[in-house]
Amino acid sequence: MEQAEIGLIGLGVMGANLSLNIAEKGNKIAVFNRTVEVTKKFYADAGALQGQIIPCETMEDFIKAIRPPRPIIIMIKAGDPVDQQMDLLKPYLSSGDIMIDAGNANFRDTMRRFKSLEGSDLTFIGMGVSGGEEGARHGPSIMVGGTEESWKRVEKVLTSISAKFNGEPCVDWLGPNGAGHFVKTIHNGIEYADMQMIAEIYGILRDGLGMSAPEIGGVFGRWNEGRLDSYLMEISEKVLKANDPITGKPMVDVIVDSAGQKGTGKWSVIEAQNMGVAATAIEAAVAGRVISSLRSERQAAEKILGKPALVDRPKDGMAFLADLELALLAAKIGAYAQGFAVMAEASKEFGWNLPMPTIAKIWRAGCIIRSQFLDEITSAFTKDPNVANLIVTPAFSQLVKETDGALRRIVSYAALNGLPAPALTSALSYFDAYRRGRGTANLIQAQRDFFGAHGFDRLDGVDKHHGPWGSGLADFA
Amino acid sequence: MEQAEIGLIGLGVMGANLSLNIAEKGNKIAVFNRTVEVTKKFYADAGALQGQIIPCETMEDFIKAIRPPRPIIIMIKAGDPVDQQMDLLKPYLSSGDIMIDAGNANFRDTMRRFKSLEGSDLTFIGMGVSGGEEGARHGPSIMVGGTEESWKRVEKVLTSISAKFNGEPCVDWLGPNGAGHFVKTIHNGIEYADMQMIAEIYGILRDGLGMSAPEIGGVFGRWNEGRLDSYLMEISEKVLKANDPITGKPMVDVIVDSAGQKGTGKWSVIEAQNMGVAATAIEAAVAGRVISSLRSERQAAEKILGKPALVDRPKDGMAFLADLELALLAAKIGAYAQGFAVMAEASKEFGWNLPMPTIAKIWRAGCIIRSQFLDEITSAFTKDPNVANLIVTPAFSQLVKETDGALRRIVSYAALNGLPAPALTSALSYFDAYRRGRGTANLIQAQRDFFGAHGFDRLDGVDKHHGPWGSGLADFA
Repeated sequence: MEQAEIGLIGLGVMGANLSLNIAEKGNKIAVFNRTVEVTKKFYADAGALQGQIIPCETMEDFIKAIRPPRPIIIMIKAGDPVDQQMDLLKPYLSSGDIMIDAGNANFRDTMRRFKSLEGSDLTFIGMGVSGGEEGARHGPSIMVGGTEESWKRVEKVLTSISAKFNGEPCVDWLGPNGAGHFVKTIHNGIEYADMQMIAEIYGILRDGLGMSAPEIGGVFGRWNEGRLDSYLMEISEKVLKANDPITGKPMVDVIVDSAGQKGTGKWSVIEAQNMGVAATAIEAAVAGRVISSLRSERQAAEKILGKPALVDRPKDGMAFLADLELALLAAKIGAYAQGFAVMAEASKEFGWNLPMPTIAKIWRAGCIIRSQFLDEITSAFTKDPNVANLIVTPAFSQLVKETDGALRRIVSYAALNGLPAPALTSALSYFDAYRRGRGTANLIQAQRDFFGAHGFDRLDGVDKHHGPWGSGLADFA
Repeated sequence: MEQAEIGLIGLGVMGANLSLNIAEKGNKIAVFNRTVEVTKKFYADAGALQGQIIPCETMEDFIKAIRPPRPIIIMIKAGDPVDQQMDLLKPYLSSGDIMIDAGNANFRDTMRRFKSLEGSDLTFIGMGVSGGEEGARHGPSIMVGGTEESWKRVEKVLTSISAKFNGEPCVDWLGPNGAGHFVKTIHNGIEYADMQMIAEIYGILRDGLGMSAPEIGGVFGRWNEGRLDSYLMEISEKVLKANDPITGKPMVDVIVDSAGQKGTGKWSVIEAQNMGVAATAIEAAVAGRVISSLRSERQAAEKILGKPALVDRPKDGMAFLADLELALLAAKIGAYAQGFAVMAEASKEFGWNLPMPTIAKIWRAGCIIRSQFLDEITSAFTKDPNVANLIVTPAFSQLVKETDGALRRIVSYAALNGLPAPALTSALSYFDAYRRGRGTANLIQAQRDFFGAHGFDRLDGVDKHHGPWGSGLADFA
């Protein structure tokens, strides 16, 4: 029997869909699940793709079925289960075999797993996969971290199953060890910000202008034909226009306003903090979900504090909508600029040499944040891969100049009318702090020197580092 | 010879000042420094306090000089040096002796150190000390974490040296193991926010209204006589009115606008993230320092993007100043509410049973954020120690209602005029998200269900958790 090109352990929804995708693209795949019945049912349901699938009931059979060196995708719940699975698997493996963790791992776990295999003849790939169930089945965006050699072994299969943007595959090798999972984490952090910003605009339309869900869906549908063209805009239109089959009301109006989170947003923020990079738009989005989850506290607070009054209604509705569209575009720039800045710093810190244009490129299709916008980012980084920040590239600095006025007006409107817009405002604050050559931290430095003798630098370079107060008097004694 | 009540290792500025404070308050203290010359010089300079000080040149002498069970303050650079010092110290100690880390430790290190002593007959105190050099010398705010028994041993000495607010000592036992250092970390996080907010107001006055440093100092001085009465306001006036002895210019105008940080702000944010608590005002403050440190990037960005134009000048200058004052007060409420919410969650997570009224109480004097405002917080938490959030207490909900209008106008002004005010705006966004009974995360939940089948809850409690799209169709099949 012809051996499989690749193996996969874990036939949950994501693993099953990824396996069918691999089979459908003409790659032979061996599959294994700890519960044999799951494997049997998966195979039975595979229909015309059965010829490409080798269902295995024992680990021995599974291993024999794969062509060495064996790439084996582990697609199970992130965390300890992955370590346990790796321990179960190791005794069966031979030199050069590649365990591939395709779950939403914390990149620090991935780093640790790489380290644990050092000195053995086995290797590892930490692989970020974005696109949800649908993406896994028909074409995800895939972010690979590992050795170049192990990448070469899986390149063909992964290229065949990945999403394509204008024919270009949305998969690449991004660097050693934790690079793939780190980039996936930041992808998700940006996704949080993107979703939060859309939700804030939705709130302004709903609570500020009094529009219905399908009306807002219509607005998003029109925006999706312009520069905001993106998967998230597309599905926002769809969910806003969907009706609840039970009550007949707009579906979103029946859904509880408490958002869950699985940790990647939080990880993005923690890593940004660890490295000292500003990621306030992502932070605002994580906080947005946190506050959303405090539903009973919010309801109690509304009773006590009252909802802020709407003080004004935009005079020119069309102009206001145009402002909202540009404001969302501007704020997105801020969120993406922060995400890429976090990756740039991580690249230095971990010695990954992350290819920024490639990252933008493989996010253009397949993943949740896929968009035309990412094609523009790809161009900007391709022209200038080492630029300090996305917003100072020629294309995006121009775009900021064209859109930040609208963002200012929307932030002002939201603030005056009590409509929460934390992610939109964070992006604006980021622009304004980042583009100001002379900031206000000189006052902070003076305060710190006053109470803690921390010292400061002088603009004129004179070698005196304390002010004429407290212990600083010594400087002038 | 009479034995010392307490010992101290590490005669740097903080350790020396703390020792003099201890001696001055009538407590006998043994001191030791790894470099004997430092100990000798400290003793020689102690003047009238020599009678209360036992300078020790060897560890043997130092240990013998302290009355058992021996409380020994370690006041050295945080991190590994503390572990090394503890290892050096241990062989000399006997049952019941208490090593006290008075540095700015990460509470996770403190937890680890407690754990490392489990099963031994030694114990540990993690002690947060705020107030800078001046506070250490004349009365700091002291946050104690450890066993109640060890607290009893040091209570008298620490009470004698702490700051007093209306005669009440600013020291207390806050809970076991890491409680003291955790509370100190959040104190510092709030301090970051407080300082950043003052710097943002300074920026509006300087770059928006064109006021000079001493003029702004005058404004802050007047505010310091009102509800903003606080140490940070007081020193802001002083530093803004101080002139540079070299150039004669206002001192702050000569200082580089890049602020340093030593990690406690970052730790606050990381722990808030770990526990899932919104701490956006502190995050904005940390990001403010981060961006301040990118001075050459900022200068380049200003060249490329241009500084945003001032679009309007407030018509009524006095009314605008009144708004600024109230805005700062409102924003402070947001920052403190977040800080206390982080501590409330940590208290649950680590089983500390943190006493919120006590924390507010011991911050009223001695520490960097000391203020009348903290006396108001003390009252609010004393009346209602288990309230969900500071901003829904009767006193503070009233204060939010009185001040949030001004904060709205200032945020709007800053946004329209391109003056960065990230911490002020974060506080406003926090109020507006927290007081809104019906938020916008229903859209986020719909999106998540659409692309990832994450499911949602329904307002009507009906047991259907997917929308009429994608895999959710199964719900209605």
